[in-house]
Amino acid sequence: MEITRPTLIVNKNTCLRNIEIMLEKAKRHHLRFRPHFKTHQSIVIGRWFRDFCIKEITVSSVQMAKYFADDGWKDITIAIPFNVLETDELNTISPDTKINLTVDNLKTVEIIGKKIKRETDIYIEINTGYNRTGISSTSINRISEIQNRIVSFPHLHYKGFLTHSGHTYQSKSKHEIQNIHFDTLKKINDLKSYFSKSFPEIEISIGDTPACSASENFTGVTEIRPGNFVFYDLMQHDLGACNIDDIAIRMFCPVISKQPQRNEVVIYGGAVHFSKDWIRNTDGKELFGRVILKKGEVSELLDTTNYLCRLSQEHGVIRMNPKVFRQIEIGDVLEIVPVHACLTADAMGCYFTKDNAEIEMMPRV
Amino acid sequence: MEITRPTLIVNKNTCLRNIEIMLEKAKRHHLRFRPHFKTHQSIVIGRWFRDFCIKEITVSSVQMAKYFADDGWKDITIAIPFNVLETDELNTISPDTKINLTVDNLKTVEIIGKKIKRETDIYIEINTGYNRTGISSTSINRISEIQNRIVSFPHLHYKGFLTHSGHTYQSKSKHEIQNIHFDTLKKINDLKSYFSKSFPEIEISIGDTPACSASENFTGVTEIRPGNFVFYDLMQHDLGACNIDDIAIRMFCPVISKQPQRNEVVIYGGAVHFSKDWIRNTDGKELFGRVILKKGEVSELLDTTNYLCRLSQEHGVIRMNPKVFRQIEIGDVLEIVPVHACLTADAMGCYFTKDNAEIEMMPRV
Repeated sequence: MEITRPTLIVNKNTCLRNIEIMLEKAKRHHLRFRPHFKTHQSIVIGRWFRDFCIKEITVSSVQMAKYFADDGWKDITIAIPFNVLETDELNTISPDTKINLTVDNLKTVEIIGKKIKRETDIYIEINTGYNRTGISSTSINRISEIQNRIVSFPHLHYKGFLTHSGHTYQSKSKHEIQNIHFDTLKKINDLKSYFSKSFPEIEISIGDTPACSASENFTGVTEIRPGNFVFYDLMQHDLGACNIDDIAIRMFCPVISKQPQRNEVVIYGGAVHFSKDWIRNTDGKELFGRVILKKGEVSELLDTTNYLCRLSQEHGVIRMNPKVFRQIEIGDVLEIVPVHACLTADAMGCYFTKDNAEIEMMPRV
Repeated sequence: MEITRPTLIVNKNTCLRNIEIMLEKAKRHHLRFRPHFKTHQSIVIGRWFRDFCIKEITVSSVQMAKYFADDGWKDITIAIPFNVLETDELNTISPDTKINLTVDNLKTVEIIGKKIKRETDIYIEINTGYNRTGISSTSINRISEIQNRIVSFPHLHYKGFLTHSGHTYQSKSKHEIQNIHFDTLKKINDLKSYFSKSFPEIEISIGDTPACSASENFTGVTEIRPGNFVFYDLMQHDLGACNIDDIAIRMFCPVISKQPQRNEVVIYGGAVHFSKDWIRNTDGKELFGRVILKKGEVSELLDTTNYLCRLSQEHGVIRMNPKVFRQIEIGDVLEIVPVHACLTADAMGCYFTKDNAEIEMMPRV
């Protein structure tokens, strides 16, 4: 395939290795492995997971549940408080498919109880410090009230607690990830003990890729739902959650302009391709991507002082050391490691494998 | 239309008014009006412009040129240094359509000269301080060299200078926008005078929405290429480029969670819907959107201390004053004014008019 405009390439072998390593970890710790599919949003990549006999998955919307159910997935958890406006949409998914829901408030339980027809497993989301959705682990009465309302509906089954410790993404090191993860385990196991008399089978479902990658302690946990690990990215690398060789995706972008006064090259490839997440480089500057330079057959990842430093709508500016700058020509295609795989994949809307097979993604509209 | 998930609604009347005002300004100053279509990326909205007898447009890629050429546009400028890897793609556009190109280096001129078959008008991009693409206005020799190479190809026609003073987006006030704009006019008119002997018909094409909206001085300018003004957004409002009532688009997002301890509601609507641009609210915090509250028939734009304060992949957190917080229920649909219309439209991939007509956008892939 000749690349002429911004193109996202996924290395299938790296993905398969990432899946295998996470699956082995789950097996080692006797955890159910329920990978989150919002990262790749692709039935093709979903089938790579299926080839490992993975049968349970996580998604973040009804639309995504439907997309994967249509490809034969039979056990899907929507791991965010259910959007009550989509009950009709949910009811259109084949009853053969088990859809497990998440709640963090009573009103949602009422509506699910009355409007969702199928047998449904329900998780209560606990906020362990990320402070987005979920009930505080200290709000015992609120939790209890919701549990009781769930079990009052014969077709709803209370399964346990679900957490997403997204604040691990603010960590500065593997050690800090593990601290946050340990705090999550403490809070959630305390809750489990507290409610174990009324609900002896309580499950614990935890989520974030940094903790699942960096930790070997899963005390009390029933299942893990990491998503990003299938691709990894610079953000995960920066956190200490992966090695640079574990990152399975690359953007390829044409060079359209060279700016000798500033040692900058401008690429076709901007916010609508990469999205706008960034990390800091060694100089403390915002970095939107790192550059891999090919010299003959050898690829070299440049240090972070050669970096994608700015994004406008469709174009990006790469600042470089003078020596590197001189090697780049108008019309070259630069290989760039993205900062946040999930948002880049979503922005691009499709990717290709290294042998040029187009990989379908969930349609946006 | 019943809104059940994040939905982008455009107010056609506001767009028509925005188009008319900018068109009138262009006429008043005897400027060619060549609106940039990267903001809306839609043939439907393109036709709204056509109803005003606008015939010349701007785009940011060959793909976009092709999309609009297929809808009958006959005079299209690609206002970014041409991506030389897309010469074959450009040659597939019907020769009936005039495609005007931009260059900022000699190599691109060589390739265009040899590989583009049609008669082509060429603009040289001048960097007036935005420091993305373009040649510095002081690099007289480089400019002259490129001009001479352009005219050495019989089918290439040197038209003049093109600028995009994108640094107006960093302004803090209308006054600052005007200062930057004045500086652009000075630089570009000096160049025009300098080269007027060899090229007496030199055109000046300027771009950015803030300057086109905020200024009434267009000395020496031939055409304006604003894009964002058709929708406007909070960023333009913040700069002083528009009034709040000029903003033509809204996101509608379901409420999925309420967090009483923090006076926060969580919406279905995140980075993949809004994209991640932000401005600062009155407290200096990052603001990703403002909330409009409906009380019966009356809509009230809340102050910026009630604001979309965080975006994860598919969800957003809105911080509110306690009094407002108490009025919001799970399952409500909140009306949100986005920060950056171009990126939000691109992220959404389609919009609807207020009377529920779906508006097609350029396919991503």
